Amino acid sequence: MNAEHLVDVIRGNIVESEHWGHIAVVNSDGELLYSNGNPNKVIFARSSMKPLQAIPIVETGAADFFQFEPADLSLACASHNGESQHTDRVKNILSKLGLTTDSLKCGTHPPRWKETYEGLMQSGTEITAEFNNCSGKHSGMLSTAIHMGESVEDYYKIDHPVQQRIIEVISDLTEIPVEDIEIGIDGCGVPVHGIPLKNLALGFAKMANPSSFSDKRKGAIEQVTSAMMEAPEMVGGTDRFCSDFMKIEEGQMFGKAGAEGVYCIGDLKSGLGIALKIEDGTGRATSPVAVEVLKQLGLISEEQKELLKEYHYPSLKNARQEVIGQLRPVFSLKNA
Amino acid sequence: MNAEHLVDVIRGNIVESEHWGHIAVVNSDGELLYSNGNPNKVIFARSSMKPLQAIPIVETGAADFFQFEPADLSLACASHNGESQHTDRVKNILSKLGLTTDSLKCGTHPPRWKETYEGLMQSGTEITAEFNNCSGKHSGMLSTAIHMGESVEDYYKIDHPVQQRIIEVISDLTEIPVEDIEIGIDGCGVPVHGIPLKNLALGFAKMANPSSFSDKRKGAIEQVTSAMMEAPEMVGGTDRFCSDFMKIEEGQMFGKAGAEGVYCIGDLKSGLGIALKIEDGTGRATSPVAVEVLKQLGLISEEQKELLKEYHYPSLKNARQEVIGQLRPVFSLKNA
Repeated sequence: MNAEHLVDVIRGNIVESEHWGHIAVVNSDGELLYSNGNPNKVIFARSSMKPLQAIPIVETGAADFFQFEPADLSLACASHNGESQHTDRVKNILSKLGLTTDSLKCGTHPPRWKETYEGLMQSGTEITAEFNNCSGKHSGMLSTAIHMGESVEDYYKIDHPVQQRIIEVISDLTEIPVEDIEIGIDGCGVPVHGIPLKNLALGFAKMANPSSFSDKRKGAIEQVTSAMMEAPEMVGGTDRFCSDFMKIEEGQMFGKAGAEGVYCIGDLKSGLGIALKIEDGTGRATSPVAVEVLKQLGLISEEQKELLKEYHYPSLKNARQEVIGQLRPVFSLKNA
Repeated sequence: MNAEHLVDVIRGNIVESEHWGHIAVVNSDGELLYSNGNPNKVIFARSSMKPLQAIPIVETGAADFFQFEPADLSLACASHNGESQHTDRVKNILSKLGLTTDSLKCGTHPPRWKETYEGLMQSGTEITAEFNNCSGKHSGMLSTAIHMGESVEDYYKIDHPVQQRIIEVISDLTEIPVEDIEIGIDGCGVPVHGIPLKNLALGFAKMANPSSFSDKRKGAIEQVTSAMMEAPEMVGGTDRFCSDFMKIEEGQMFGKAGAEGVYCIGDLKSGLGIALKIEDGTGRATSPVAVEVLKQLGLISEEQKELLKEYHYPSLKNARQEVIGQLRPVFSLKNA
């Protein structure tokens, strides 16, 4: 293993658990500036790929045709809480497409937002697919299929034009040939994309600074990242790092979490892309590492750091809501 | 880090995540027979300590006085699902003690068993402390306080006789002086105990073969382990490894999970104690390691292994319930 020790989980006076992993910081020219662990490790980006996956929604003209608001496009990049602000908007998008929740092939799971979940149970309401945290992404995929006159039943399959457009965008932004992208199946049934960590960081760097692309692609990328930063509450929701982080970064950075311990950030000011993977797949360690990377790169102010404190050093609480421990980042970024 | 690579998380054709950790296999004489990673690592046993914590319930005479059934004692060793089989029994124990749910200081969390949780929401029932997975342990602690005429408001504090009896038992079984046991606070508000992994294994070995103890302690230990194996459904519940594992082991082994990736087993036939800690604290990796250790030690039959297959090689499913990956143990036990 060439992962590095990134985060300690402290309880009482001892380190109860440790998280190890990999970090890559890349500029939009593809130069690896900093790395910890193995920046060449092939990882599944999981939901961190959603901002790239949203680009065809603009490029096909679907976003314009269906008059998507920034919040609609932001929701297409989301792993959302399933709050009403998310599910109402998903239903509205589907209605614009002439579709219903039945067209979503993401499957169902209880909404992440506890109050929504409990409210559904209290009112005896069935949990349907719009509550799936990926329902915005699926709605976005459907918008391109409808707009291009393609079949909607099988949009989730790798050989469908919806997925082929996405993989072409990923290949272009991450500079990995289509045939070298590892394909797996995500928690919501669509393909996930496996590429080296540093190339995932490159994808975010090129979204932060899309000057090397054609005007069309550049415009589409800017529309997606602006939408995320303009409507960050869509990307996660209440008490979620992605949303709170983008609010605090005030239009300078966009970030997206992925399952199994992935996090990616693009910084517009520096044009840097950051990608990190917690080796063991634990999501709790991602925000401490992400904020610590920004701190060490000097990309956040003291005030922003203070506002992100509970994501930087998350408290562990017991069921009595007493603080009984803390997560702490323990690494130093290394020049690559 | 001296943890070893124990489990791969496979998605598609790649290893998406890895779990590393530590294993100790000890006999009841305290000989370390096998170890992977660092068997001397000080870890918090968390809920894996519950079988040892239940011993004073018998030794104080509380179990006899309150006519505890084996299932009551088994529930005192539980991290249960909060199913009605568990919560009804907790309420019954409290009623025997002349107490109510209000005396439980474990705090509340939604019951782990989804149907129970959703049922509570549907009926508008408040989630009270008996649904906390540790409510059986807390009821057991209260039984000793009541029986010994001690205060019940502060039974969770380290200097209360309830906790002092427990720490004396732990010290005796694990051969760690009381003053060397690291103390933290558990998710349910009571002290947790930090000791070297091999000493935790020793505690389980000595519970599996308690012949070195006084008749009183030996009898109490046998009463606890018999209760766990006689009523394994109390220790976890439906679809829980602890319960299913003990059912399949048919009175030969007892096992108990602990938070942050701990698992411990005692085997009556061989007198061996096994303790394992996943370095990153992830619970999903514990059953694959536990079953693999038993397999490599030759302690389970082909038939038992087959029955434990879904715990040995857990499937990863997406929200559409398709199998899209698998956990796989990847280590070989090493002679210590």
